[in-house]
Amino acid sequence: MHTAQVSLAVRYAETDQMGVVYHANYLVWFELGRTAFTESIGLDYLEMEEAGIVSPVINVEASFKKPARYGDEVVVKTWLETYDGLRVKYGYEVGTAGGQICVTGSTVHVCVRKSDFRPISIRRQFPQWDAVYERVKQK
Amino acid sequence: MHTAQVSLAVRYAETDQMGVVYHANYLVWFELGRTAFTESIGLDYLEMEEAGIVSPVINVEASFKKPARYGDEVVVKTWLETYDGLRVKYGYEVGTAGGQICVTGSTVHVCVRKSDFRPISIRRQFPQWDAVYERVKQK
Amino acid sequence: MHTAQVSLAVRYAETDQMGVVYHANYLVWFELGRTAFTESIGLDYLEMEEAGIVSPVINVEASFKKPARYGDEVVVKTWLETYDGLRVKYGYEVGTAGGQICVTGSTVHVCVRKSDFRPISIRRQFPQWDAVYERVKQK
Amino acid sequence: MHTAQVSLAVRYAETDQMGVVYHANYLVWFELGRTAFTESIGLDYLEMEEAGIVSPVINVEASFKKPARYGDEVVVKTWLETYDGLRVKYGYEVGTAGGQICVTGSTVHVCVRKSDFRPISIRRQFPQWDAVYERVKQK
Repeated sequence: MHTAQVSLAVRYAETDQMGVVYHANYLVWFELGRTAFTESIGLDYLEMEEAGIVSPVINVEASFKKPARYGDEVVVKTWLETYDGLRVKYGYEVGTAGGQICVTGSTVHVCVRKSDFRPISIRRQFPQWDAVYERVKQK
Repeated sequence: MHTAQVSLAVRYAETDQMGVVYHANYLVWFELGRTAFTESIGLDYLEMEEAGIVSPVINVEASFKKPARYGDEVVVKTWLETYDGLRVKYGYEVGTAGGQICVTGSTVHVCVRKSDFRPISIRRQFPQWDAVYERVKQK
Repeated sequence: MHTAQVSLAVRYAETDQMGVVYHANYLVWFELGRTAFTESIGLDYLEMEEAGIVSPVINVEASFKKPARYGDEVVVKTWLETYDGLRVKYGYEVGTAGGQICVTGSTVHVCVRKSDFRPISIRRQFPQWDAVYERVKQK
Repeated sequence: MHTAQVSLAVRYAETDQMGVVYHANYLVWFELGRTAFTESIGLDYLEMEEAGIVSPVINVEASFKKPARYGDEVVVKTWLETYDGLRVKYGYEVGTAGGQICVTGSTVHVCVRKSDFRPISIRRQFPQWDAVYERVKQK
């Protein structure tokens, strides 16, 4: 399975008064992982936006195992879970550099027109993206 | 079922370049709903923190139906889904003032010692909280 | 001097591991104050955006006197400091409900075309806004 | 003058509906610059926090010249502006990889006890830090 990895240092701004990373920030890290993943398979999200299409999250799920803290270096691993021509589901694992798992999760995305948020078919309207997702799915 | 409601105006800072609320911010709104809910049943979260206990999220799940936008007034409804003495699961619905549902979701929480993030039993260590959750559960 | 006031409860998400509100969040609160101020003088920012104009901050300055904390209710006061047809400068004071000043500051804004961020003259292109600012300035 | 540099890719979460980086996020980037700077001169901020001391911002000032956008790689340059044994003032310049300046600014910090936010003298209580700041100041 093709997996992309991105490393990042926890930002002070990402902590809360529990002394750990505020949970919503892991979704931001998922996004960094997703960006690294789509880049690693040769897709350019900005190109899509320039064509008037955006790719919102329609579902998110996350399990928090161990909090990351300021001072930690974390690694976000991202892979393709499923793809059906309309919906893309990514899987994520966030861990410390030392190998402890902090958070696992997934997000599901569709593509919509920015002007009215009407869904479009990736398969029909972005056949090149479709071909890439199909190829990655086989691995 | 007891449900708490809180209204809020979308902040400009909460939008992203898609022109809608950035998805991770709904988790922040869930938190505002949760705060309103616990207050509505007479619990004071700060009291718990002063006793050295914090209540992190261990699971989150959200479905995004319709994006909220700057200029919208939204309402967050929150209720208790399940409680077993250790884990509290809250349900959420975020909608526009006009009645359209934007996001539904849930979060699961445990209580841990702030010093080492070791889980504690709400039932044993916060019998008053336990009694309140049990009472609300019956409704 | 005309001053707008807006109250808000500190969000958990706004704290950091110092146990207080993370400093950049006061800029978000300034924005809430600014929104309340422009509404109080009858201006509608969204109308401007719909006309293809946005109003970015070109300068910000803030002095932090006393940290706000989770559990605090804070009040943001906002007023017009200067206006010259091109630039609008707002002043802010953030305090606790109890009357203690937390932060004071100011922001300077211009209006630009969203498409290329080229500055426009409020006086020439939004004469109605200009008239309102001029009137408020006299007070 | 000793200057630290840190590079970062703009996060989608950092944009707003103007289509550019939301202004408050530059303060977060200043913090990343500051962290890189203190590390580059051999200081460890976490060590200070473990000793019960935190270093809040007491003043911030920023001028926004050109907005950074999603897709941009930006560079944050940070240096020591002034130091007097109590207060540390850092200067910042945020620019694109292509060399265009986006934002300049400064922050002033003191050190306080985390327990009650009472200021302490860096010179007296952290003589090692004081020596480092004095040395860097000469350059």
